[in-house]
Amino acid sequence: MSASRYPDLDRTALAAALEDARAGYAALAESGLALDLTRGKPAPAQLDLAGPLLTAVTADDYRSPGGVDVRNYGGLEGLPELRAVFGELLGIPAEQLLAQGNSSLVLMHAALGFSVLHGTADDGSSGWIRQPQAPKMLCPVPGYDRHYTVAESLGFELIPVPLTDEGPDMAVVRQLVAADSSIKAMWAVPMYSNPTGITYSEPVVRELVSMTTAAPDFKILWDNAYALHHLGPDEPAPLDVLGLAEASGNPDRVHVFASTSKITHAGAGVAFYASSPANIRWYLHHAGQMSIGPDKINQLRHLRFFQDAEGVRAHMRRHAEIIAPKFQAVLRTLDQGLGGLGIARWTRPAGGYFISLDVLPGTADRVIKLAAEAGIALTPAGAAFPHGLDPRDENIRIAPTLPEPQDVQKAVDGLVVCVRLAALEKLLAA
Amino acid sequence: MSASRYPDLDRTALAAALEDARAGYAALAESGLALDLTRGKPAPAQLDLAGPLLTAVTADDYRSPGGVDVRNYGGLEGLPELRAVFGELLGIPAEQLLAQGNSSLVLMHAALGFSVLHGTADDGSSGWIRQPQAPKMLCPVPGYDRHYTVAESLGFELIPVPLTDEGPDMAVVRQLVAADSSIKAMWAVPMYSNPTGITYSEPVVRELVSMTTAAPDFKILWDNAYALHHLGPDEPAPLDVLGLAEASGNPDRVHVFASTSKITHAGAGVAFYASSPANIRWYLHHAGQMSIGPDKINQLRHLRFFQDAEGVRAHMRRHAEIIAPKFQAVLRTLDQGLGGLGIARWTRPAGGYFISLDVLPGTADRVIKLAAEAGIALTPAGAAFPHGLDPRDENIRIAPTLPEPQDVQKAVDGLVVCVRLAALEKLLAA
Repeated sequence: MSASRYPDLDRTALAAALEDARAGYAALAESGLALDLTRGKPAPAQLDLAGPLLTAVTADDYRSPGGVDVRNYGGLEGLPELRAVFGELLGIPAEQLLAQGNSSLVLMHAALGFSVLHGTADDGSSGWIRQPQAPKMLCPVPGYDRHYTVAESLGFELIPVPLTDEGPDMAVVRQLVAADSSIKAMWAVPMYSNPTGITYSEPVVRELVSMTTAAPDFKILWDNAYALHHLGPDEPAPLDVLGLAEASGNPDRVHVFASTSKITHAGAGVAFYASSPANIRWYLHHAGQMSIGPDKINQLRHLRFFQDAEGVRAHMRRHAEIIAPKFQAVLRTLDQGLGGLGIARWTRPAGGYFISLDVLPGTADRVIKLAAEAGIALTPAGAAFPHGLDPRDENIRIAPTLPEPQDVQKAVDGLVVCVRLAALEKLLAA
Repeated sequence: MSASRYPDLDRTALAAALEDARAGYAALAESGLALDLTRGKPAPAQLDLAGPLLTAVTADDYRSPGGVDVRNYGGLEGLPELRAVFGELLGIPAEQLLAQGNSSLVLMHAALGFSVLHGTADDGSSGWIRQPQAPKMLCPVPGYDRHYTVAESLGFELIPVPLTDEGPDMAVVRQLVAADSSIKAMWAVPMYSNPTGITYSEPVVRELVSMTTAAPDFKILWDNAYALHHLGPDEPAPLDVLGLAEASGNPDRVHVFASTSKITHAGAGVAFYASSPANIRWYLHHAGQMSIGPDKINQLRHLRFFQDAEGVRAHMRRHAEIIAPKFQAVLRTLDQGLGGLGIARWTRPAGGYFISLDVLPGTADRVIKLAAEAGIALTPAGAAFPHGLDPRDENIRIAPTLPEPQDVQKAVDGLVVCVRLAALEKLLAA
């Protein structure tokens, strides 16, 4: 592998490299691949891990430890025993954590939607939709496209803020929230962020919960989707964001979300909402106006399968055994194929579901098109940015969990070819 | 049993009857009952019927007939094979029927909420919340309290309209919807209505879908919660409301809902949304902004358990075997205890979950209080009316499905005592 930085090559050397890259791409395109690195789906082998869960509640054995017949109506808060297990894992008192339906995204939509229609628990004003200015929401970028869609569907104007290795760029955030009272909310994926894999540092978290905001009812939607999804032996506990918020005098600032979709079965797990006691009352009031309660049978399946918090931790280690080698293959291939070329940089996540690859600015869209034509599907360019607009056209999200290891390898081998080709085209066109 | 009409008795006879009734009530109060006729919950024996469903999807056998691994993300529309089964039962093409989450109430909230925030599929205007007048919703009364709560939570003004034995009083409905363009929607429980048990006649249904409305985007929320819940040998098919609406030139007027909560397991079943092709696209667009998709594992459990539409029909006959005797006990006891007294009338449903009892006007609240003090819990007075206000204070909803047969008998025996006592008190106070 060449370690000459492409940007330092003269035009003759670039032209030669481009010829090589074109030949490499032609071979790739002829190899007839059909691979998919687009979305953060668990692999079948991961789903198999939770197989016994499916038959953990039976025709003859359907009562919760507390004696509830989970086959009948009721229990809007979710099964207390399951709330206790995930409360322990997330460091949140069980009374402040609700077990709900199959989708944390739906819970985020609900928490934002209740605020838009009815206002928040801590502010007597009416819903955000009735205020003179449309509500705005801060979006650390790159981030999760479905977050943007939820917020846009509820009428929020999205404001991108840069994400550093420590969390959102607080100099930017601090200034924005202090100046504009129509900034009502902010997205956060505090651990193993989608897609960069970074984890918010404690100083950043402390400032997020304590900073002065022009909006008295400013909220952070704290999507801890990957809180338990470590890839290696380090298993840091989630920061006590609710406790820190309370200690800062802003107890109602943070709505916390989590789910088992990437722990047990995707789309058939249990989602959790956690917050201050006042927010929990507020949520239950509004949720109780539209639902009699969540699927408790599925909650009891989860409780019985895991037994306790340690059961979940052991289960997550088995996930890591399956997916960590895929992450390692991606990183090894990027290191070998792109290292030292000066045309790309990538993250090395310690958990989560994604690797974020920044290619030569102005080439991400081209790389993704080249890959698609060679049979390698990648998340569309710009997907990690509000309105799908990556201002530097450089970010590519790699989702290595779903394919078989050999397919991950083939796909990233091909991706490297495309990244090089697009970079050389760009450098020669300059 | 006396067959003298209480209202025809002279005061001496009334006083004597009151003395008897007080003695009867004193004995009742001393008998230490703790019975509950409040909510339409299935009995454990009904829940047992679906026992095998719980283990119908296993660790080794998790693919839909179409080959989908139901343990992973995707499939916002729900499993096509389950949509086909319930489409056949409801007389709706599978393409126009979506299988969703565990709660049809949540789907109703969603369909109304999308209209409030974003507007309807057939009208280019913005959401109803942005129109000059608050939206209004017609509520046939007596009706279902949770419908009112959903609509109120979304900002609707509720307008009661009388429910006859054929459906809503169309003379009233026709006039209201023609005159007021802010009447945007209407509730309907078209079969075995909650709580009266009546079924809308075909002429009423035809007029509902064809009538002229001042609002161009008027919608009927057609909650066919009890479409398959026959109590006797007659099993009328649901009217083809979507076909009738289309034939009337109002294809997008009706949102249809159904669920298996009272077929399999309450709160852990599958809910369905059905409508015109344009409304289905509209619903999927908005639902797709907040959810990746429903719990397909539970949908596959349902499909495997029932196999086909005839499997559901046979299953519903087994429900009827359990609950029809309870309905018969209530009716027999009301006939014997209150028949001919001129102080009450009640419905004789051929399906559904409720019997509606109208007592002497001005005494329903008193009856319910008397019953509560004697250990018999009934749905609160007025619950079947918007804002909990029964203008005649006469309606009591009886929900006989949950208790054991002997407890249903005891509870209704006691209820008869309370109805008589309250009526005599009222007549003597006049």
